[in-house]
Amino acid sequence: MSFARLLLLLLLLAGSPLRATATAHGAGPGTPPISRIDPTFWWVGMKNPKLQLLVHGPGLAASQVTLASYPGVTLDGFQRLESPNYLVVNLTIDPAAKPGKLQLEFRGKRKTTYSYELRARTTPGDKTKVQGISSADFIYLLMPDRFANGDPTNDVVKGNRARTIARDSMYARHGGDLKGIEQHFDYLKELGVTAIWPTPVVDNNMPKAGYHGYALTDYYAVDPHYGSNEDYVRFVQHAHEQGLKVVHDVVLNHIGSFNYLWLDQPAKDWFHQWPTFTRGNYRNGTVNDPHVAVLDRKMFSTTWFDTTMPDPAQENPLVATYLIQNFLWWVEYTGVDGYRVDTYTYSDPTFLMNWGKAILDEYPQLGMFGETWMQQGEGVAQQAFWTRNVFPPINGFKSNLPGALDFMLRMTLVESLTKPAGFDEGVSRLYYAVQGDWMYEDASRNVIFLDNHDVDRIFSVLGEDVNKQKMALAWLLTERGIPQLYYGTEVLMKNFSRPDGLLREDFPGGWPTDPKNAFTAAGRTPAQHDMHTYVRKLANYRKTHPVLHTGQLTHFVPEDGVYTYFRHDTQGHTVLVMMNCNPVAKTVPLNRFAERLRGYTAARDVLTEAEVPNLQTATVPAFTALVWELR
Amino acid sequence: MSFARLLLLLLLLAGSPLRATATAHGAGPGTPPISRIDPTFWWVGMKNPKLQLLVHGPGLAASQVTLASYPGVTLDGFQRLESPNYLVVNLTIDPAAKPGKLQLEFRGKRKTTYSYELRARTTPGDKTKVQGISSADFIYLLMPDRFANGDPTNDVVKGNRARTIARDSMYARHGGDLKGIEQHFDYLKELGVTAIWPTPVVDNNMPKAGYHGYALTDYYAVDPHYGSNEDYVRFVQHAHEQGLKVVHDVVLNHIGSFNYLWLDQPAKDWFHQWPTFTRGNYRNGTVNDPHVAVLDRKMFSTTWFDTTMPDPAQENPLVATYLIQNFLWWVEYTGVDGYRVDTYTYSDPTFLMNWGKAILDEYPQLGMFGETWMQQGEGVAQQAFWTRNVFPPINGFKSNLPGALDFMLRMTLVESLTKPAGFDEGVSRLYYAVQGDWMYEDASRNVIFLDNHDVDRIFSVLGEDVNKQKMALAWLLTERGIPQLYYGTEVLMKNFSRPDGLLREDFPGGWPTDPKNAFTAAGRTPAQHDMHTYVRKLANYRKTHPVLHTGQLTHFVPEDGVYTYFRHDTQGHTVLVMMNCNPVAKTVPLNRFAERLRGYTAARDVLTEAEVPNLQTATVPAFTALVWELR
Repeated sequence: MSFARLLLLLLLLAGSPLRATATAHGAGPGTPPISRIDPTFWWVGMKNPKLQLLVHGPGLAASQVTLASYPGVTLDGFQRLESPNYLVVNLTIDPAAKPGKLQLEFRGKRKTTYSYELRARTTPGDKTKVQGISSADFIYLLMPDRFANGDPTNDVVKGNRARTIARDSMYARHGGDLKGIEQHFDYLKELGVTAIWPTPVVDNNMPKAGYHGYALTDYYAVDPHYGSNEDYVRFVQHAHEQGLKVVHDVVLNHIGSFNYLWLDQPAKDWFHQWPTFTRGNYRNGTVNDPHVAVLDRKMFSTTWFDTTMPDPAQENPLVATYLIQNFLWWVEYTGVDGYRVDTYTYSDPTFLMNWGKAILDEYPQLGMFGETWMQQGEGVAQQAFWTRNVFPPINGFKSNLPGALDFMLRMTLVESLTKPAGFDEGVSRLYYAVQGDWMYEDASRNVIFLDNHDVDRIFSVLGEDVNKQKMALAWLLTERGIPQLYYGTEVLMKNFSRPDGLLREDFPGGWPTDPKNAFTAAGRTPAQHDMHTYVRKLANYRKTHPVLHTGQLTHFVPEDGVYTYFRHDTQGHTVLVMMNCNPVAKTVPLNRFAERLRGYTAARDVLTEAEVPNLQTATVPAFTALVWELR
Repeated sequence: MSFARLLLLLLLLAGSPLRATATAHGAGPGTPPISRIDPTFWWVGMKNPKLQLLVHGPGLAASQVTLASYPGVTLDGFQRLESPNYLVVNLTIDPAAKPGKLQLEFRGKRKTTYSYELRARTTPGDKTKVQGISSADFIYLLMPDRFANGDPTNDVVKGNRARTIARDSMYARHGGDLKGIEQHFDYLKELGVTAIWPTPVVDNNMPKAGYHGYALTDYYAVDPHYGSNEDYVRFVQHAHEQGLKVVHDVVLNHIGSFNYLWLDQPAKDWFHQWPTFTRGNYRNGTVNDPHVAVLDRKMFSTTWFDTTMPDPAQENPLVATYLIQNFLWWVEYTGVDGYRVDTYTYSDPTFLMNWGKAILDEYPQLGMFGETWMQQGEGVAQQAFWTRNVFPPINGFKSNLPGALDFMLRMTLVESLTKPAGFDEGVSRLYYAVQGDWMYEDASRNVIFLDNHDVDRIFSVLGEDVNKQKMALAWLLTERGIPQLYYGTEVLMKNFSRPDGLLREDFPGGWPTDPKNAFTAAGRTPAQHDMHTYVRKLANYRKTHPVLHTGQLTHFVPEDGVYTYFRHDTQGHTVLVMMNCNPVAKTVPLNRFAERLRGYTAARDVLTEAEVPNLQTATVPAFTALVWELR
């Protein structure tokens, strides 16, 4: 290592919020030759007794490692990498080992002892932790930087590469944080939300655009703009106390280019290296294509997702273990209820299987769904391929991901509301997409959504048509699966995705200086309040009516642009949903649905609260969804 | 049975060409109380020793049945049906039984003996019979009534419900026949065709539109407008002698409303009965939809395909056996090489499995592909579902159909040539459809096509753009699968499918009085001749280059509207195909394809016969496909 590079490294580490953590759990006073150990601490009693420590310190590789006697813990060995600054230390922790501090001794030119903490687990016994995510939930997706600023003291973080906040800049930090979210738990609960999915809260210490969270620079730290690691643990705990779950957004596929592992690489083979930035083809079909060209396959899985996002080489067993441990760590440390796995399809397929198995072996109750983004033309099969499905292994890959982020349903729902119905067009496409559920192990584990931080906001997609958006929401809250709302949809936030920053505007009222506060009824325009009321009404109905969580779905072939489906259970509950995808009202005789109306004579309109005295016909206004509880 | 109905029946039977057959193989002189027995004859040595005879005769049901002693043949029993005019007689034929004539005695008010023929099999030992259909073939689909009139004496068949021919009427008989096809074997061979698929040749004794062949009125007779049963056997034999195979088009799902089984029904439960004609929903997705409504399922499988097409109840074991035996009969009798199964998805799923198994157990070498027509929005999975695939049984159904008529590839090919390329549009859809091959057991068994008698002719679809049609043909003749050409495409026949009769015009020159004869070079316009030459050249190249039959397909992600794929084998043969789906020429650097160019330094353009001196770049004119043999 050149002097210049060493200096750079020291400067970087000095500026890292992790330094504090490392010091707290590790080395003693003086300039520590051990700058960090990942995982930063661990637990006794994990199912897998093996633990791989990645130890970093300038010139550390020349050291010998020993472990002071600790009952139940064995030093299996240690391993040098290409870099002079790393050692991999392998331990076995017996199930009977007690919590405490391991004394690891590193002996090179001089001797250093690192005190490594083994904690007692709490998640297995604590029922408030890792509750899972199910179709009983209603997820609210938000961007922590853009939702609400609860703590102005962390708006600018000293030494951070993002030096300022600038709310008028689409890609700068805006100051939102965990405390800001927490201050609106009541708002979310009132809306009918049961689970919060913030885009990644992990450190994105990037000079630009770190606000989005997908360029992680430290696997073991929360972004200090949002709070500390301990703040996040408390955030999850408070959410749980309020009856709200938390989904943790995890990125396996890439990191930010200011991640310390990239700046000071353990070895070249820890990353996919390209002479110059090479944009990938974004075609996940290359993984299961029997006719694939070798180059195309490579151009999907081993390219960088973007210029500032290096691609870890997950086929390297050391990297794989590093990642698996990290994502066990976050669950055990915080007790989050679910994982949303970013860019799921881009990871190494074998790694994905091993990662999923390791996480779910340890936390079978963890809710897990992945970004299995594909194109409508690829069909349901390509989405199902990336989840637990009925297919045999293809090219050795058999996904163990419980659920998909259901892009296929989103795309076809949009088509239903924007293109005229035909035998193969418009709402027929939605019908086909739902028909495709036969390919999933359990499609009700899919997360369904109208929009998110990457795709056009639904209000814009639907031409700012309030009726159409209500119809979309009625679908979202009655369709099989786990509904997810993107923050602000309830108050008519809009915009298209070019550029994507437009999708990520601040929630009005999240900042004390905002002229309007849409978190309050008084602060909403009549149109916003109307939409908010619609969501609140239906989400709370859904929340208290399990038939919409686990009731069977039966749908009928769309006719004349009207798509009718039922959710029903064996306890006598039935909800009818009728979507009129036409610009004119339709009156539909109900005799066609006799098999699902049997035993009922009337209904209550869930949205208008009107009584429906008989089940002869239903009249549905243009671009409207009826939601009837049968009686 | 009323007197009027009996009279009608007798009149019908008198007019049936089957009467001759029945008499020839069966009852003696005098008014026979046995009007027919299906199958009309059988063979010794079939794998399944069981034989179910459906015996018809006025008032026959009151009879007792006995069998005169015949070594190796046992009468297992007989069974009455609802109708007074039928008996089902069950026999077991020991493998050791010899050919001969069984004497079946029917004793009611009077006694009748029926002499039932058991023939010796020829297909198992005769290598010219049942040759199968494979990706080495090039199928020519034609409509016998519309291709060529070789025998004017059968243009009008005495007593037939179609009383006249009328070439100026879209839905009348035009007079084409087997002899007409046979007279153009040389034409087909010269074109590079290796297999002929006529739309059904079986009897369609219907007052209207019987020309299309899909309303069969007699399971055991060839339409006398085309020739006799024996003529058809000779037709197959002559084709085989000329190196041409024959695909027999079979209809399991429905019959014509003048079928004798419908006019005099064995029992009500032999057919799906509806109080009035009830149009189905044509949604085969109802079969594998986990959310299906009972009514929708029924509205797909048990409705009639059209007003004049009753729907046999294949779930009735007697009906199932009747159908299975019939389709064993045709193979054994004629030695045809393949079955094209009409409206495959509409049949009862369990029946389909049993039928396919029975046919392929007896004739494993029989080529078989089905009309698994679906919509593009349903995705490849829905097409693969109806063939041998990687899926487990869904709702108890696991198809044993070797190949699909690949509608998905047809639809996406059309999209490639008619819509601009995008990440999910235009040629990307074709790429996705081919990627979906992972769902098939073997996608190379699929029959690929540009058009057929039910969909818009390709020349019209492509805006009568000669370049685009050539491109489509280049794709057809180099893509994986079994290519099928619809008659007349090679001479620019055109039209859209509303009404469908327009797709079924006479081949110019098939009638002696035709002003132009496109079967001859002199009779073709320059544009027709140019297209004909294009097909002939490429089809004959394909015929002699097995790399295009069985060579592996490797394709590359389309870039900039250019889709590039290779067929290659392990014997050093490689063909490059580059489809430029843009309205402007493209020059493409070839280095991206290095993995498939390795070992080659030059190429020959198969179409222009030009030498390509190096493999640096390829320049492809607008809407053109390059086909290069690498050297």
